[in-house]
Amino acid sequence: MKTDIEISQAATMAPITEIANKVGFSPDSIEQYGQYKAKIPFETIKAKDSEPSGKLILVTSINPTPAGEGKSTVSIGLADGLNRIGAKTSLALREPSLGPVMGVKGGATGGGYAQVVPMEDINLHFTGDMHAITTANNALSALIDNHMQQGNALQIDARRVIWKRVVDLNDRALRQIVVGLGGPMQGVPREDGFDITVASEIMAILCLADSIHDLKRRLGAIVIGYTYQKEPITVSDLQVEGALALLLKDALKPNLVQTLEGTPAFVHGGPFANIAHGCNSVMATKLALHASEFVVTEAGFGADLGAEKFLDIKVPVLGKAPDAIVIVATIRALKMHGGLPKNELAQEDIASLKEGYANLQRHIRNMQRYQIPVVVALNEFVTDTEAEFQTLVDLCQADQVEIRRCAVWAQGGAGGEELAQAIVEITAGNGTTNYQRLYQDDASIEEKTAAIVKKIYGGKQVTFSQKATKQIQSFKQYGWDELPICMAKTQYSFSDDPTKLGAPTDFDVTIREFVPKLGAGFLVALTGDVMTMPGLPKRPAALNMDVTDDGQAIGLF
Amino acid sequence: MKTDIEISQAATMAPITEIANKVGFSPDSIEQYGQYKAKIPFETIKAKDSEPSGKLILVTSINPTPAGEGKSTVSIGLADGLNRIGAKTSLALREPSLGPVMGVKGGATGGGYAQVVPMEDINLHFTGDMHAITTANNALSALIDNHMQQGNALQIDARRVIWKRVVDLNDRALRQIVVGLGGPMQGVPREDGFDITVASEIMAILCLADSIHDLKRRLGAIVIGYTYQKEPITVSDLQVEGALALLLKDALKPNLVQTLEGTPAFVHGGPFANIAHGCNSVMATKLALHASEFVVTEAGFGADLGAEKFLDIKVPVLGKAPDAIVIVATIRALKMHGGLPKNELAQEDIASLKEGYANLQRHIRNMQRYQIPVVVALNEFVTDTEAEFQTLVDLCQADQVEIRRCAVWAQGGAGGEELAQAIVEITAGNGTTNYQRLYQDDASIEEKTAAIVKKIYGGKQVTFSQKATKQIQSFKQYGWDELPICMAKTQYSFSDDPTKLGAPTDFDVTIREFVPKLGAGFLVALTGDVMTMPGLPKRPAALNMDVTDDGQAIGLF
Repeated sequence: MKTDIEISQAATMAPITEIANKVGFSPDSIEQYGQYKAKIPFETIKAKDSEPSGKLILVTSINPTPAGEGKSTVSIGLADGLNRIGAKTSLALREPSLGPVMGVKGGATGGGYAQVVPMEDINLHFTGDMHAITTANNALSALIDNHMQQGNALQIDARRVIWKRVVDLNDRALRQIVVGLGGPMQGVPREDGFDITVASEIMAILCLADSIHDLKRRLGAIVIGYTYQKEPITVSDLQVEGALALLLKDALKPNLVQTLEGTPAFVHGGPFANIAHGCNSVMATKLALHASEFVVTEAGFGADLGAEKFLDIKVPVLGKAPDAIVIVATIRALKMHGGLPKNELAQEDIASLKEGYANLQRHIRNMQRYQIPVVVALNEFVTDTEAEFQTLVDLCQADQVEIRRCAVWAQGGAGGEELAQAIVEITAGNGTTNYQRLYQDDASIEEKTAAIVKKIYGGKQVTFSQKATKQIQSFKQYGWDELPICMAKTQYSFSDDPTKLGAPTDFDVTIREFVPKLGAGFLVALTGDVMTMPGLPKRPAALNMDVTDDGQAIGLF
Repeated sequence: MKTDIEISQAATMAPITEIANKVGFSPDSIEQYGQYKAKIPFETIKAKDSEPSGKLILVTSINPTPAGEGKSTVSIGLADGLNRIGAKTSLALREPSLGPVMGVKGGATGGGYAQVVPMEDINLHFTGDMHAITTANNALSALIDNHMQQGNALQIDARRVIWKRVVDLNDRALRQIVVGLGGPMQGVPREDGFDITVASEIMAILCLADSIHDLKRRLGAIVIGYTYQKEPITVSDLQVEGALALLLKDALKPNLVQTLEGTPAFVHGGPFANIAHGCNSVMATKLALHASEFVVTEAGFGADLGAEKFLDIKVPVLGKAPDAIVIVATIRALKMHGGLPKNELAQEDIASLKEGYANLQRHIRNMQRYQIPVVVALNEFVTDTEAEFQTLVDLCQADQVEIRRCAVWAQGGAGGEELAQAIVEITAGNGTTNYQRLYQDDASIEEKTAAIVKKIYGGKQVTFSQKATKQIQSFKQYGWDELPICMAKTQYSFSDDPTKLGAPTDFDVTIREFVPKLGAGFLVALTGDVMTMPGLPKRPAALNMDVTDDGQAIGLF
């Protein structure tokens, strides 16, 4: 059996000009980055603005388990499948972060015969977006520390700087650090730390901004910390939003690549789905919609995290709700949600499957609550039995939801045609859904948080720590209480306890602390321990990586 | 008068395919990065290998002063001038570092009508080389800290890790930091610090490697620290040279851009000229030589630092010595070397000029010692008087060295024709010089250091600190004593005291410490305080930067 990188390196890619042509861009209207990557400049985007919008398909999943769900693979295979049955389709996906690639993952561009390529480039530096974000983030840190060093006119309290530095790597030693040591010429000593780049507010901003103008406005609104009088200080106060926007001007342009089957793929932006909203950029999604009949996009982690944020945070900015939602599940993962241990997943086990279906069922009902049609995509594994499949079909039928098998890993787009057909049928019609938001922005912070915890997670109630309660009061004073809530919660469970699989009930969720993200335009509610800087494993994927003398990558997968 | 960015934005650039064509590369044989930048892939480089080598012109200068010398501007104008008089010429220059751009400089791509473009891109993220180096450098740090965290099989002594992290920013608060705080799950606490990316050994390696194979060998040889038993530990011991090379595989490909007059410019690599050797890449220089009749290149700071390292470190790797050396001087700067205060430089002052000529004279004699023809380029300023110019001409004539005026800032290549003509004449002939190295590699560390201090700096003697003396002994044991010496010294003086302008004599130079750079292949000898992480000024250039709604840069210069 071929590995992902072998499949990808054996593929014959079309020149990116040809892919661009499929979505109506002439060679002169794109910025090529090598033969197989391009950025789409602002003039080209503007010229597409008047085109009608295609249909938007959001791919999400059950709560992830170590058994694997394959959400990206299904998204890619579905898009290829749609093109195969004659629906002009593009992808709008997130960019991988180098940290996990060098750490555990080894790559994040789909798998098998459902991949976006060139996978080596996309997994490594791609068109430099991550690096631009890292640089802008750290330039802001340097400017903050320099401001304190050079007289501190804004009276920044070094103990209350909330802006952290970033690297796009897994580096636990940088989680908690002390900077500015070495005496008065080396800066103001203070506690600091590095997050991974995809956790930077600037990443979230890049993904929500719809123009350079909006980018600059959002950058200016970032709260970097507080004065000695506890008044918030923004980037505008430092007068550096222009410089930061300048560093990001090219990163804001959507990237274009292709799938193994030549489907245009806009791969752009990749905010963490815990501390941020976990979806690709508004710029790319909008552009893809104006350039295609169907756009397949994806949200991070399970539907309780990524899809909820897509629907409640991204959709209002995008101005367009999904026309259908695909929930990816695997029989293996459902059996795990039903209590079967990881080493027994290869065995048929109808009872565990039925038990674990509760997880899928709650996600289905949650998505239906938004008044958007739902299809379940069963991502097939060789160990699945026909009896298990039939059980799942029966369960879905009882819940009146469509389910389709998917064999895109092994077969590419051909294995996604059945799902594609269902999507075309379910979205046929005048093209608007009755999308309903979960909450309105003018509800109180407590109400909005409770709506998510009770209606989406299935929790009993939400409690706020003393700190969070105090923050709610000051946020009202600052006028920040009309922002949506971005939950930071474990992806493994509906609850804030990663060990509670399936569909737990009767649990409370505690909000430990809020983090204001005024530039992104949301308030992060922290539950449990949120990891914003991963560590490397005992044997990092990097140890398997190499490059041949003629420049071919080895060890990405 | 137009600013640099105004001139550059008003310029009509040729598509990069057209520029590539001038040096014999077809559109298919380059990797485009937008319309006006390209990387040259390895196959294309290989195909040029059999072409005869053109002539190499090294541009260097007197010791820099706040009065300004304009070495890059002269290099660019000279290349344009050579093309104007019919000599097929390319440039091989360094890439700017973002730190100084955001800090004081605002840009580093020449000036006036002698610029490389697109200046915005080159000054910001360009083709991502700096970011790839930053990432590779910091991935190594993360892997080192992870190794210590996960059992420390190599017995790395946390107190003796010499590998530092980097950012491509001016950020003094990161000079001295403590990492790994927060308890046993957050890494091993230790002292660390960030250098600016251009000070990274990986930058030096990228600029000296002549292939991916050589890159990997050099990366493997990097010494990252010592065991508890004080034995050196290399990257090969960690088995991650493959992963680092993979991160750098695209960065190793030379970049192609153009001057305002359409001269092909290979802008690639930019190591600091203090902690490293301060020249652009061997890959780019070689490629340019195979693709042109003349190649104009540049070395950092004054001829005592950059040119000495070019001649003693880069030339043996490149396998080709310069055919001529241009020393850039200005009358203003020479008057400063002669003792005239900065605010009086606009006045005619023959006495100061004569006095300050001693600085230029020593550089001339130093360069002549290498048996390479020398031409002085007088970079004109409006305040220069005819009497001053005549004085300088007489002084040069007495020293039997050619001098030519240069007006490239105001006139572009037309202002460099006279200098270009002199270069063509002086290099006419069979094309080989009698290049003589300053020292042989098998001389002792003490002898090599003394050769630089006495013969180039004009110092009386070199003394070694107790630490340096001890290091020389252990380096002999490790077999590192046959490497060339890379001096880290102030750029402002021939001596190690930045206030001693002109041509000081009767001074000693103290080597405080050596830093082994086994990957780069040299031993750094530290004198005085060497700044490997600059700070930001009170009002950073970033505060003037902005971007328009349609993506035009503001505030770069």
